[in-house]
Amino acid sequence: MAVVNEKVAILGAGSWATALAVLLAGKGIPVEMWARRAGLAAQINSERQNSRYLPGVYLPPGVQVNVDLSAVVKNARAVIYSVPSHAFREVLRASLPYLSPRALLINAAKGIEEDSLLPLSRVFAGEAGEENNSRYVVLSGPSHAEEVGRGMPTAVVVASRNMAAAEAAQELFMTGSFRVYTNPDVAGVELGGALKNIIALGTGIADGLGFGDNTKAALMTRGLAEITRLGLAMGANPLTFAGLAGVGDLIVTCTSMHSRNRRAGIEIGRGKSLSEAISAVQMVVEGVRTTRAAYRLAGRYGVEMPITEQMYRVLFEGMPPREAVINLMSRGRRREMEEVALAAVQLREKNYQNYK
Amino acid sequence: MAVVNEKVAILGAGSWATALAVLLAGKGIPVEMWARRAGLAAQINSERQNSRYLPGVYLPPGVQVNVDLSAVVKNARAVIYSVPSHAFREVLRASLPYLSPRALLINAAKGIEEDSLLPLSRVFAGEAGEENNSRYVVLSGPSHAEEVGRGMPTAVVVASRNMAAAEAAQELFMTGSFRVYTNPDVAGVELGGALKNIIALGTGIADGLGFGDNTKAALMTRGLAEITRLGLAMGANPLTFAGLAGVGDLIVTCTSMHSRNRRAGIEIGRGKSLSEAISAVQMVVEGVRTTRAAYRLAGRYGVEMPITEQMYRVLFEGMPPREAVINLMSRGRRREMEEVALAAVQLREKNYQNYK
Repeated sequence: MAVVNEKVAILGAGSWATALAVLLAGKGIPVEMWARRAGLAAQINSERQNSRYLPGVYLPPGVQVNVDLSAVVKNARAVIYSVPSHAFREVLRASLPYLSPRALLINAAKGIEEDSLLPLSRVFAGEAGEENNSRYVVLSGPSHAEEVGRGMPTAVVVASRNMAAAEAAQELFMTGSFRVYTNPDVAGVELGGALKNIIALGTGIADGLGFGDNTKAALMTRGLAEITRLGLAMGANPLTFAGLAGVGDLIVTCTSMHSRNRRAGIEIGRGKSLSEAISAVQMVVEGVRTTRAAYRLAGRYGVEMPITEQMYRVLFEGMPPREAVINLMSRGRRREMEEVALAAVQLREKNYQNYK
Repeated sequence: MAVVNEKVAILGAGSWATALAVLLAGKGIPVEMWARRAGLAAQINSERQNSRYLPGVYLPPGVQVNVDLSAVVKNARAVIYSVPSHAFREVLRASLPYLSPRALLINAAKGIEEDSLLPLSRVFAGEAGEENNSRYVVLSGPSHAEEVGRGMPTAVVVASRNMAAAEAAQELFMTGSFRVYTNPDVAGVELGGALKNIIALGTGIADGLGFGDNTKAALMTRGLAEITRLGLAMGANPLTFAGLAGVGDLIVTCTSMHSRNRRAGIEIGRGKSLSEAISAVQMVVEGVRTTRAAYRLAGRYGVEMPITEQMYRVLFEGMPPREAVINLMSRGRRREMEEVALAAVQLREKNYQNYK
């Protein structure tokens, strides 16, 4: 599927796009990045670092930034989409006429399209056609750009309905410090990456309110259970949520100061409004849109999501954050197994197909 | 099962025993603690705080500490065993002649008996007889004593083969800020609490070596997968590891500075020897014994536990910690789903019985 000397295109010039460029160029792969803004492209090309989004990480000479999307995409053996989720449809559409027929298409964005409530793999299939699913790969997992850019040991997941495509992406990214696992569950991997941001906002709020590590661990665990329930209802394999794209990404997002979602939550917990919190973080906070989308999806699929519901009330209905935490702690007595046993039964009923 | 005015006995006077005493006494329950050392008992009784193990948390008047184990146990409606796992058999045995016939027996210790390789519920059944399993309850979950003692919102699990006993324990502990879930899976809850300490040592080492949040999240996720595999082989329900006693406790232990196992790991990662690290922490580091036990159990059950194996080499065979991390990152390419799909198949084959 791949010719070694052909370039890889990265659409986007944020922190994650930049870290992936550094990773690939470090393997000797020519990389062309697309930036929407000419000023940012010029700055990165001349300074050899993305001082706005990934300061202090220097780009190898093999990386070039260009504002002409068609030129970046043409003749690329792989195209990596690394844009905010709300821009994915537009950038994908713009790229379609220029794609090499055999280019691997890798989505590194994490989110749910807000108006349509579609996971990004469904946006992809709608725009590019189902026939292109065999070259569509989702990249996810616990991978802060700040650390990947500095070569810290990291493990991620690539998911595709087509094993050969997942293995091509594994081959593309794998290094001694960047470990890549394959997984056939596209829905689970993309939903894990998107939905965990809701829980990161919630644990950030708990941190901002001054609660401790026990509170955070409880929110993360119960949060994992509720995003797994929604994932299951939407066709994901619940076991994926026990892996790198589920609990792994949840952990890194809820515990690291690199996480914008967590940092926005902390500001809200300290009493800032949503808009003040977003401007304090100065980057896209995916979890805000995702909370609204997941709240609507929970209603549509009839899934109980108490943390998402309380987050929705805090973010969009002005509920004081402390009241949300109290609401979560004062629900009726529960048997932990009721929920997980239910998931197990549903799993048994689901005829899970391994891909070949 | 319980008379409200009868006392509760807590055997042990460490940080967790003290936090549970404060919690129960805060509900108006008379609490008698047993301390092995007369000096510690006298100090706690006079200062009204356990300044050695839980400084700064004051004991309500309803708590008394006594060195006479028989007097503490007699007439207690519930006996809570909160001693290091290697002392559990001895303290249990000493308590047996004095137990009220209907006393609830709650184990708050987390570990595996080292010589016998038995989980503590099996130690219990061997000493107290299978007929007492119906009043045996395991308490576990993400609950640092330092935070429970200060009333931080916390959620835990109580597991028993007998639902009525689990619900009596739930009733006993539940408060507005201490949320208690029941779970029928005794093996899973006790193994989760024990085995997570191995991973906490490992992530501490990674922290001590200067690795980042991505590395830690990867170790935690892969660690969760391997302790789930061992749990499954030993009769636990793998879904319990996705709950508070599994991933919840793993998160709090691997990310909090309250964790002795993590702190010991950090010291080792910075170059200290095992014995230097243990003396730096100045409390029992359960994960060291548990690593040795789990390494032997993995061999016995034929379960692949790469992180446990590397930890064993570092702790007991002098392998440099950095080499262990490199070994973990350079294993062959894997499909994440192979392992989780295997667990799902085994789960389907396991005829999981809900208790009544």
